[in-house]
Amino acid sequence: MTTIDDPRPAAAPAANAGTLVPTLGGQYYCDPAIFEAEQDRIFEQMWFCAARGADLASPGAFRKVQVGRESVLVVRGRDGALNAFLNVCRHRGAMLCTEDAGTVNRHLRCPYHAWTYDLDGKLKAAPNLGSLTDANGARISRTEYGLVPVALREWLGYAWVCLADEPPSFETDVVGTVSARLGDADAVENYGVGGLSVGRRVVYDVKANWKLIIENFMECYHCATIHPELTEVLPEFADGLAAQYFVGHGALFGEQVQGFTIDGSAGVDPIPGVSADQDRRYYAITVRPNVFVSLVPDHVIFHRMYPMAADRTIVECDWLYVPDVVERGMDLDRSVELFHRVNVQDFDACERTQPAMSSRAYRAGGVLVPSEHHIGDFHDWVADKVRG
Amino acid sequence: MTTIDDPRPAAAPAANAGTLVPTLGGQYYCDPAIFEAEQDRIFEQMWFCAARGADLASPGAFRKVQVGRESVLVVRGRDGALNAFLNVCRHRGAMLCTEDAGTVNRHLRCPYHAWTYDLDGKLKAAPNLGSLTDANGARISRTEYGLVPVALREWLGYAWVCLADEPPSFETDVVGTVSARLGDADAVENYGVGGLSVGRRVVYDVKANWKLIIENFMECYHCATIHPELTEVLPEFADGLAAQYFVGHGALFGEQVQGFTIDGSAGVDPIPGVSADQDRRYYAITVRPNVFVSLVPDHVIFHRMYPMAADRTIVECDWLYVPDVVERGMDLDRSVELFHRVNVQDFDACERTQPAMSSRAYRAGGVLVPSEHHIGDFHDWVADKVRG
Amino acid sequence: MTTIDDPRPAAAPAANAGTLVPTLGGQYYCDPAIFEAEQDRIFEQMWFCAARGADLASPGAFRKVQVGRESVLVVRGRDGALNAFLNVCRHRGAMLCTEDAGTVNRHLRCPYHAWTYDLDGKLKAAPNLGSLTDANGARISRTEYGLVPVALREWLGYAWVCLADEPPSFETDVVGTVSARLGDADAVENYGVGGLSVGRRVVYDVKANWKLIIENFMECYHCATIHPELTEVLPEFADGLAAQYFVGHGALFGEQVQGFTIDGSAGVDPIPGVSADQDRRYYAITVRPNVFVSLVPDHVIFHRMYPMAADRTIVECDWLYVPDVVERGMDLDRSVELFHRVNVQDFDACERTQPAMSSRAYRAGGVLVPSEHHIGDFHDWVADKVRG
Repeated sequence: MTTIDDPRPAAAPAANAGTLVPTLGGQYYCDPAIFEAEQDRIFEQMWFCAARGADLASPGAFRKVQVGRESVLVVRGRDGALNAFLNVCRHRGAMLCTEDAGTVNRHLRCPYHAWTYDLDGKLKAAPNLGSLTDANGARISRTEYGLVPVALREWLGYAWVCLADEPPSFETDVVGTVSARLGDADAVENYGVGGLSVGRRVVYDVKANWKLIIENFMECYHCATIHPELTEVLPEFADGLAAQYFVGHGALFGEQVQGFTIDGSAGVDPIPGVSADQDRRYYAITVRPNVFVSLVPDHVIFHRMYPMAADRTIVECDWLYVPDVVERGMDLDRSVELFHRVNVQDFDACERTQPAMSSRAYRAGGVLVPSEHHIGDFHDWVADKVRG
Repeated sequence: MTTIDDPRPAAAPAANAGTLVPTLGGQYYCDPAIFEAEQDRIFEQMWFCAARGADLASPGAFRKVQVGRESVLVVRGRDGALNAFLNVCRHRGAMLCTEDAGTVNRHLRCPYHAWTYDLDGKLKAAPNLGSLTDANGARISRTEYGLVPVALREWLGYAWVCLADEPPSFETDVVGTVSARLGDADAVENYGVGGLSVGRRVVYDVKANWKLIIENFMECYHCATIHPELTEVLPEFADGLAAQYFVGHGALFGEQVQGFTIDGSAGVDPIPGVSADQDRRYYAITVRPNVFVSLVPDHVIFHRMYPMAADRTIVECDWLYVPDVVERGMDLDRSVELFHRVNVQDFDACERTQPAMSSRAYRAGGVLVPSEHHIGDFHDWVADKVRG
Repeated sequence: MTTIDDPRPAAAPAANAGTLVPTLGGQYYCDPAIFEAEQDRIFEQMWFCAARGADLASPGAFRKVQVGRESVLVVRGRDGALNAFLNVCRHRGAMLCTEDAGTVNRHLRCPYHAWTYDLDGKLKAAPNLGSLTDANGARISRTEYGLVPVALREWLGYAWVCLADEPPSFETDVVGTVSARLGDADAVENYGVGGLSVGRRVVYDVKANWKLIIENFMECYHCATIHPELTEVLPEFADGLAAQYFVGHGALFGEQVQGFTIDGSAGVDPIPGVSADQDRRYYAITVRPNVFVSLVPDHVIFHRMYPMAADRTIVECDWLYVPDVVERGMDLDRSVELFHRVNVQDFDACERTQPAMSSRAYRAGGVLVPSEHHIGDFHDWVADKVRG
């Protein structure tokens, strides 16, 4: 898509005004070894947005999520808090849950040999457990043989997990990124994202590297070419320079536009906390490594990416509304259709780009035009991570 | 499944009574390089049970079998004996047989250039064969340019083949394993396995490493959890300790049980030679690397595994009965259903375990409870073989 | 198939008369690393026959072709000449064309960001193009940022392309090969291949290495075994020695044969320029690395191979006739059926051979009989190329 998430000053140095600068080389997008390094050093080290908390309503509700190369269970505990664990029994390694989501009855019980874990991960029971001892002959520890825990934080209504032994600062890496983009630590709070309800969810299976999807979201140079509906609603996106606006800038709706819908017609009930200067504007934020947040006055569009292979990424997109709008069954089709169409247009472009990444013509990469220069920072960041 | 094939004394050292001991690390179950080493040093070096001899009734009948990474033909010769060859023409390498089984008419003739081999593998004919000479100008040898032979032994009605240049002792490795488990060299002979008829055959395509299937067969700690029908028929399997019984022990049928059937109803005609102390008992034997034999009074269940990839194994399972039972068309459904259901339950468990083998949670493996300790011997043996 | 394309004297040294000589080892046919070396040093270095020019009738008509590992566009320019380019936008790498063939309207326009190229590859337009500068601050070059050109020659009505930085001599490698085989630089001109029309095209997806397909085409030792219809029409093919005839030799039709058809019935209108000594004869030529040409008095059969993987090759086969024959809609079925059946017979043989290439029985390869000895030259050539 279509974003304006560059926190740098709009006034780039004059010397670079029109310069073409190089991108990453093609191997970054198709070499399985680089993808493995990314899994190891990015997706298994950073805070990764895994699941919508409200999807796990009651104790025992779980969702199975692919985080890097690991299968992770996010589970609602008896105390109402979310926990996350590696989805692996400590006895002989069977997956505890093979379904994508569901609800267990009080415990996580391995269906192979019946090792049974509390919802907080502690080993609760196993056949003959009472007689089992560790190498020193002591009774085995319920914690040591409990499920392997994964760090978890809840924010904006989502469970963010981190597989690192020592997770980085959530406040800096996640909250700080959103604040820096919006220019204000409180700006996102106005939308009350955590209290909204999922009105629609679409899952896209994209045959492209995850970085092509991020790069696409970070620039609007393509908007005039592939997003006719979106540029109708947000006319300034048609000039392709959206990304160079100041920190805190949101793209203004067109004069005749009544709402962020496929035909510019009025949307649904506005989110109560949205401020006057946030009204009739579209804000987009990229939270590395796997989240895009799009804010408009009456809904929030929340993308999570799950990188599956160098050339395949699953994208799950939620459209979030004021709960009452969803409960009353209001018609969301015109609202959802706008960004769904943008998604399809964008992912088609990414899939068309993926095959050329292995060409000799792209061995040294392509070029970034000025309105894409901020993608270079992303490239530098990825290259640093991959080098380790 | 469900076995009791540990030939070691039941009384393990007291010090280890309840200890958890480590398994192989997860890479052993998913690393293609380790699988290749296993193909090289285990399946292509040991005696491998390839085919039921009675399936190849008349001269020219053949079966094509995957042994390690090789396609092997087992062929009934004109003299009535079975022979085995690599399924590769010596001229330009075409496969002689592409069907899984069939019957040729007197010779194995390559369909590409018509090089033709006797059923004992010797080169019989080829276009212009009379004028062909070797590098020294001599007439070419019918043996040197014959099919590449594979060692073959028949036992229990099956053809066992070995790809090693110098095959290990069949008497020690195969016959000896069965004798040691049953405590008596003659015990298996009572079942007359070679003279039984195949009443049913089911082929399972299991998305799991072959070792997970063996380990599952070697312990009964899972029986109470996943095999309700089996533990009904064999109550002692419910305690999970089956594997620690003495050499020669067979699990006793439940008191109300009339036969080894899905509902405990009576089976079919008993095998005549079965002794009084073998009656109403179930014996299980693992013959490395690819066979399980299960003995009950009225039938024998014979599993062969064909490892296809680190995460895929084909299992072919024969239910063998007294020939008259099969010829008269007696109803075998209740008899077959019991172990077929056990197979499905077991293979589901193995498939659920396979995906976790690449998790960081299983990098150092899991643990064996006391009733699984004998699996540690299997692990040591595999690790020795893989190290070469 | 079936060829007689050995330009060496028929009288091989007497000492080798009947000798079996070794082939390439099996790894040459299944090792992905060797296939990659072949892509690098053979298919991406030599002249590769890519497309029939007449398929691209008007300016803007294009065909997308896989050449080695690259996607290449062959495009008819406004001046009527064909050009070839890598199918990669110079901006951020999107494929310009994703369809196999089509026609663009005056320009090649990238559907992602609308960078637009003339049909000769020059960068014509892009959003904000006027303000873009290179690293030195100069206006960017329309050529430097044009599509990456691929060398192209037209001959026999086909576009031959070459990805090498310095293409080898087309006259020596392509034209010279045909002349040497036919014994005369003008012999092929009699057939006016460039002016013929495609009467039928069949595309075969063959699960075999490209070299197995070439080797099959180069020898006739298999003809008696698998080509009953062909040997009926060309009786001398039944002796398997076709390949040892003199330079310039064409196989004579059988006495009762009226045309090169499935049943020997008369063909269609003869090609006007065919000479008296070319009449009633079949000539076959292999042009390395990817072309076979078969000449008969009333049509030409033209095979192009596209190697896709070590064990997969796409073969596109054109049957070419005098234009008037095609325009009048004459019945071509009996004519096409003969070589279509030969193709199917040959590709079945190749697919039957591929699986054995990884067998220990073929580790050191197979053997060539005397009538196949010239394949040894091909093997030496491949081995030299792969060694680099």
